[in-house]
Amino acid sequence: MKSLKWMVMLMLVSVAAAAQQQRYVQYVNPLIGTAKMGHTFPGATVPFGMVQLSPDTDTIQYIDKGKYNPDVYKYCAGYQYADKSIVGFSHTHFSGTGHSDLGDFLVMPTTGELKLNPGVATVARSGYRSAYRHESETARPGYYSVLLDDYQVKAELTATERTGFHRYTFPASNEAHILLDLVHGIYNYPEKNVWTFVRVENDTLITGYRQTLGWARTRTVYFAMTFSKPFKSYGSVNEKQEMYGGFWRKFNQKQNFPELAGRQLKLYFNFDTKANEAVQVKMALSAVSTAGALHNMQAEIPHWNFDAVAQAASDKWEQELQRIQIEADLTTKQNFYTAMYHAFIAPNVFMDVDGSYRGLDQQVHKAQGFTNYTTFSLWDTYRALHPLYNLVQQQRNNDMVQSMLAHYDQSAVKMLPIWSHYANDNWCMSGYHSVAVLADAFVKGVSTTGIDKALAACVATANKSSYEGIGEYIARGYIPAEKSGTSVSNTLEYAYDDWAIAQLAKKAGNTAVYETFMQREAQYKNVFDKDGFVKRKNALGQFLPNADLLSTHGQGLIEGNSWNYSFFVPHDPAALIQLMGGKKAFVARMDSLFTMYLPDHYFAETEDITREGIIGTYVHGNEPAHHVPYLYNFAGAPWKTQELIRRILPLQYKPTPDGLGGNDDCGQMSAWYIFSALGFYPVAPGSGSYEIGSPIIHHAVLPLENGRQLRITVQHQSEKNIYVKQVLVNGKPIAGTSITHDDLMQGGEIVFVMTDKKTAQQLAKKLN
Amino acid sequence: MKSLKWMVMLMLVSVAAAAQQQRYVQYVNPLIGTAKMGHTFPGATVPFGMVQLSPDTDTIQYIDKGKYNPDVYKYCAGYQYADKSIVGFSHTHFSGTGHSDLGDFLVMPTTGELKLNPGVATVARSGYRSAYRHESETARPGYYSVLLDDYQVKAELTATERTGFHRYTFPASNEAHILLDLVHGIYNYPEKNVWTFVRVENDTLITGYRQTLGWARTRTVYFAMTFSKPFKSYGSVNEKQEMYGGFWRKFNQKQNFPELAGRQLKLYFNFDTKANEAVQVKMALSAVSTAGALHNMQAEIPHWNFDAVAQAASDKWEQELQRIQIEADLTTKQNFYTAMYHAFIAPNVFMDVDGSYRGLDQQVHKAQGFTNYTTFSLWDTYRALHPLYNLVQQQRNNDMVQSMLAHYDQSAVKMLPIWSHYANDNWCMSGYHSVAVLADAFVKGVSTTGIDKALAACVATANKSSYEGIGEYIARGYIPAEKSGTSVSNTLEYAYDDWAIAQLAKKAGNTAVYETFMQREAQYKNVFDKDGFVKRKNALGQFLPNADLLSTHGQGLIEGNSWNYSFFVPHDPAALIQLMGGKKAFVARMDSLFTMYLPDHYFAETEDITREGIIGTYVHGNEPAHHVPYLYNFAGAPWKTQELIRRILPLQYKPTPDGLGGNDDCGQMSAWYIFSALGFYPVAPGSGSYEIGSPIIHHAVLPLENGRQLRITVQHQSEKNIYVKQVLVNGKPIAGTSITHDDLMQGGEIVFVMTDKKTAQQLAKKLN
Repeated sequence: MKSLKWMVMLMLVSVAAAAQQQRYVQYVNPLIGTAKMGHTFPGATVPFGMVQLSPDTDTIQYIDKGKYNPDVYKYCAGYQYADKSIVGFSHTHFSGTGHSDLGDFLVMPTTGELKLNPGVATVARSGYRSAYRHESETARPGYYSVLLDDYQVKAELTATERTGFHRYTFPASNEAHILLDLVHGIYNYPEKNVWTFVRVENDTLITGYRQTLGWARTRTVYFAMTFSKPFKSYGSVNEKQEMYGGFWRKFNQKQNFPELAGRQLKLYFNFDTKANEAVQVKMALSAVSTAGALHNMQAEIPHWNFDAVAQAASDKWEQELQRIQIEADLTTKQNFYTAMYHAFIAPNVFMDVDGSYRGLDQQVHKAQGFTNYTTFSLWDTYRALHPLYNLVQQQRNNDMVQSMLAHYDQSAVKMLPIWSHYANDNWCMSGYHSVAVLADAFVKGVSTTGIDKALAACVATANKSSYEGIGEYIARGYIPAEKSGTSVSNTLEYAYDDWAIAQLAKKAGNTAVYETFMQREAQYKNVFDKDGFVKRKNALGQFLPNADLLSTHGQGLIEGNSWNYSFFVPHDPAALIQLMGGKKAFVARMDSLFTMYLPDHYFAETEDITREGIIGTYVHGNEPAHHVPYLYNFAGAPWKTQELIRRILPLQYKPTPDGLGGNDDCGQMSAWYIFSALGFYPVAPGSGSYEIGSPIIHHAVLPLENGRQLRITVQHQSEKNIYVKQVLVNGKPIAGTSITHDDLMQGGEIVFVMTDKKTAQQLAKKLN
Repeated sequence: MKSLKWMVMLMLVSVAAAAQQQRYVQYVNPLIGTAKMGHTFPGATVPFGMVQLSPDTDTIQYIDKGKYNPDVYKYCAGYQYADKSIVGFSHTHFSGTGHSDLGDFLVMPTTGELKLNPGVATVARSGYRSAYRHESETARPGYYSVLLDDYQVKAELTATERTGFHRYTFPASNEAHILLDLVHGIYNYPEKNVWTFVRVENDTLITGYRQTLGWARTRTVYFAMTFSKPFKSYGSVNEKQEMYGGFWRKFNQKQNFPELAGRQLKLYFNFDTKANEAVQVKMALSAVSTAGALHNMQAEIPHWNFDAVAQAASDKWEQELQRIQIEADLTTKQNFYTAMYHAFIAPNVFMDVDGSYRGLDQQVHKAQGFTNYTTFSLWDTYRALHPLYNLVQQQRNNDMVQSMLAHYDQSAVKMLPIWSHYANDNWCMSGYHSVAVLADAFVKGVSTTGIDKALAACVATANKSSYEGIGEYIARGYIPAEKSGTSVSNTLEYAYDDWAIAQLAKKAGNTAVYETFMQREAQYKNVFDKDGFVKRKNALGQFLPNADLLSTHGQGLIEGNSWNYSFFVPHDPAALIQLMGGKKAFVARMDSLFTMYLPDHYFAETEDITREGIIGTYVHGNEPAHHVPYLYNFAGAPWKTQELIRRILPLQYKPTPDGLGGNDDCGQMSAWYIFSALGFYPVAPGSGSYEIGSPIIHHAVLPLENGRQLRITVQHQSEKNIYVKQVLVNGKPIAGTSITHDDLMQGGEIVFVMTDKKTAQQLAKKLN
């Protein structure tokens, strides 16, 4: 592992030296996706870092007066571009999710009258929040800054892996404050805070922790926070009157009292500042202890040189972006590198500098021989994000595989993660797609040790009969509608996952498991009606009547309709084509999908997307259909795939704040862009192959972790030449419409010969 | 340290061998004090153990409908002898306190219909509690048993230091249950549970933890629980609907679901049992982690031999009781050894078998070179309990001193403990009496290393100006009534504590600190009015008019009236006598104290005592006057002390459930008995001397930790011969009324020559 990392470093350094004029961070705009549905955040983070220090622009509650408040949804990442005020800067954020949590440890600089509530967006100066304008806002990888207009304070943020670094430039004031609001959170509600504990260790150092009950049920984050100069005084409020009397009878905890605990704590630190004086703050996190947080801080930023840390953050991003060096038009580079940026924000390192981390069993563990990661939005990311890592983040993906296996070891229910973050599984979405991540990693040789253990974990997870209809699926071959609200999509997803397990078993040489799961993978057929559409089936084996093929509600499908989901057999398109009546019929079905008009009321009920996110009724903004545009390849009409890809790319991805067609989903949408821009896509992770699409780049160089270099050359690239005449792998034309992982990893050159002729091409040989 | 321990072991073993016929555990009755005010518990524990596995007989809430419920007071130890039903058996209890907490992890065996609420005492079979009778109840050191009448289940309990061991003998049943109620607690109220987390690891092992907000503000206890046979099924309820949906949407957490978290959890485990089949339970605790708890269990009880553990518990008690081997009448032996038993229940070992413990800063620490203890009820125990340890538990007391110094190191407010348990200070009561514990230990040579550090900690604590009037006390010499509701007793207590610090400074050779604190100790005089009574004084230096000398309320005194408190100058009785007008006047004052009639309404307002606990207006049940009976020695009337002692002993201490005159207060009341029964008492801890009283024993042998043996011989002992004619220390008559710690520690023989003549004796020489 170490020598591989060294080889990677050497390769990157030499390539970077060669491309020294070319830095890619300049093309990244973190504001992309921060408006509307993208749900990205603009703040400072380093690749896969534990800290995401970013501005939050509102405090809408998840549960308000006992009811779910739908307005909270916009704030999954804490920030909406259209908002006019900033509440403060908190240290943890998801990127692009459709539900949320985090927003820990909000820090806010203010001047003048002390206000301890954030106020409301609609009333100026109603609390400690401040108005701001985008004109005085800067966001680039590893750095964010904004002028807080109400206080004339310039806020700058940067970060290392576990430490947020703030620089606040104040006007002259003897009423300068820095607030630490431990009540604030994303997807907050009155009882979300389980406990908060804070110690003011001295006049520059504060430590503590907060436990919350949210999307993660038992989540505790520890912090150590230090100021660049001593505060002159400080105070606190606890907005929830607590029972116990000893502390509040014997002490005035509101002023300069260093030992605080309770459920609704806020602290404020008072300073005198001269004009243009900068007060800096470092806040490090840990999931293990405050001692761990402090140690993380001392290891990562043992000084106060903000600019050096910001430069280092930028350099870390540059180093990652250099893994794929493209030549393309400016818009494409902006989209592409912002997509890479988004694809490398999460999963997040989840261990202290000493390797300690909190496991799913809430115990402290030491990661031996791997880096522990968290934030596995697996329903989204198994599709293209982890396959992207198997190409350009192999060491990290292997660490993520090890992290998932550790999760399994620590699981009381003996399952691999479903949707996990911060030492919890929140069980969100469907399927058991961690098996696809494991299969793809082992099949592609990215993970090599412990395959039998990995296979056993996959089998145990896929055999968890009591979970989400798995028992029915195993016993009957499908899930009856009575048993699950997503009986149909679950059946389809399990079938694909089972096929992935079979690939892993084949790699492991385990014939028994291979046979079992190849028998299971075929069960997708059981939810296809005679008309070739997936529909709900009851316990008697009868399809329910009156299926609404365009509706995403009540059809036994999660985040999609039957028109889209009926194409979800990514592991066996040939069989799917047969099931749908042959290639001609299949092509006609695909054509309808991409051209029909979706009535408004169907659009309204479709989650997480914009109107622009729909082509026909194909919903790019939600993942189940991500592989679908590539399926024309299997039906002898690859040029249709190529047309679509060239249509989706500019439609769904624009380098503007509202430019993302749907939630970025922890990088999955971005990974789709990256692959598609390069010209190929992993339709079925676990297969080791990629389907050809239509690249929009001119050229790409990928310095691979195995020490080799892959070059992608696109000849005759233009807006008209969207069709692929031929693909050559190291000079040899490919026979069909796919290339293999080995083709990529051997290095050398892949050439796409583009043309404007929509004629049967060499790539269409499969038609007959 | 190790060789000392080895010497102690040898000494005890040899003495034990010599006295093999004589076992002292037979004289201990753990039921003493379990009725009315004693607040002791009858269950199983080992000396200074972390676990106190004991039956709880009700569930009265601390806060009911937003108000304090005074009925809760009876249940400080969870058990009241008069109650007719048992709710269950929980694992942590205080002994003899006047406020409370704990009651963690209630376990209850039941049969038949499953009931998950405890029910109420007034309605038979209204919940899972069971009726019981004292006739079928047994309590002896390290063992408790009772027949649960409603289920015909025999419950037996024993323990090791960190592990409770239950043996439940069931009738034949296919509906046998063992409940684990994680809601139950002592001094409970609806929001007390901060968080509970449970994992059912397999069909015999459960782990988890609970965090509470009670007398301790941030207290978390971890457990590992195992059954001697697998349960057939299990279930849970969470009585508080929690927000988060993932778990309750995807799983039926109520049946056989192994990963539970929330605020109001209860679990039940189902068994089939044959007639007279025993199902056993081991539950180990840790303040560090569930892994720590499991490791503690495996280290302490790596088998299922209940009887062996019960025998070992008994042997551990025997070993401790052998530290003072008395010959006396049966009643005295029952009182004496029960007092020793109560005196050695707490403080409690507070670290895992590997030395890890949770510190005041909530971090995990490793105890290096000492055993970490907790439960320091210092307002009570500095008086006689820790001085008793300096005689017969020296190694342990030194460990306690080290534990208090570690607490200081970890304290954010930089103070030694006031009243601390389980990694928290609850700040209860008054004074800063840890300094007296430290002073006494160093002065007596029980602690020898780190005296400068100890002195610095004492000085820092005594200089904490913002705490409880200390600043006023330092600046003015007394605390004005406007500043504190206990301004007078605080002043007196600080004065004594400061004198103790001065003794420590003298021992350390620190003249500057000595001088400072000898000047401070004299400040007690400032609250004495011309009439020789302590009264409140305002900020202008005027005594408030209309002081009520008999009232315990509104007089600036804590748990006592002026008649008692005016004698609280334990460090300088000679000066007190002068202040009161000389020896004759002092004796008259003392006589009045012990003979006057206390009107009913004054009795009613006096806390924590029984009517029997008052002699005149002297209140033995509360600590401030514990030294007072001995003060006649300083006024030339030692026979009056002797009369009193012989009167108090049988009055306040009877070998019956209601036989204790007041709360045992974590062993302080018991320590008073032990010293007084032996014939001497440490009036001023820190002085190194003891005042002679009137022993009620015939003979005592104390195998000291320094390898020597101390023998106490009482000649002519009888009910009439209550006066002391002479005291000889190794053949030499003492000149006054006191002996020194060195006198005791040198070993040899101390002889009391008793007489019935209340005449001026050799001991009365001090009169003139």
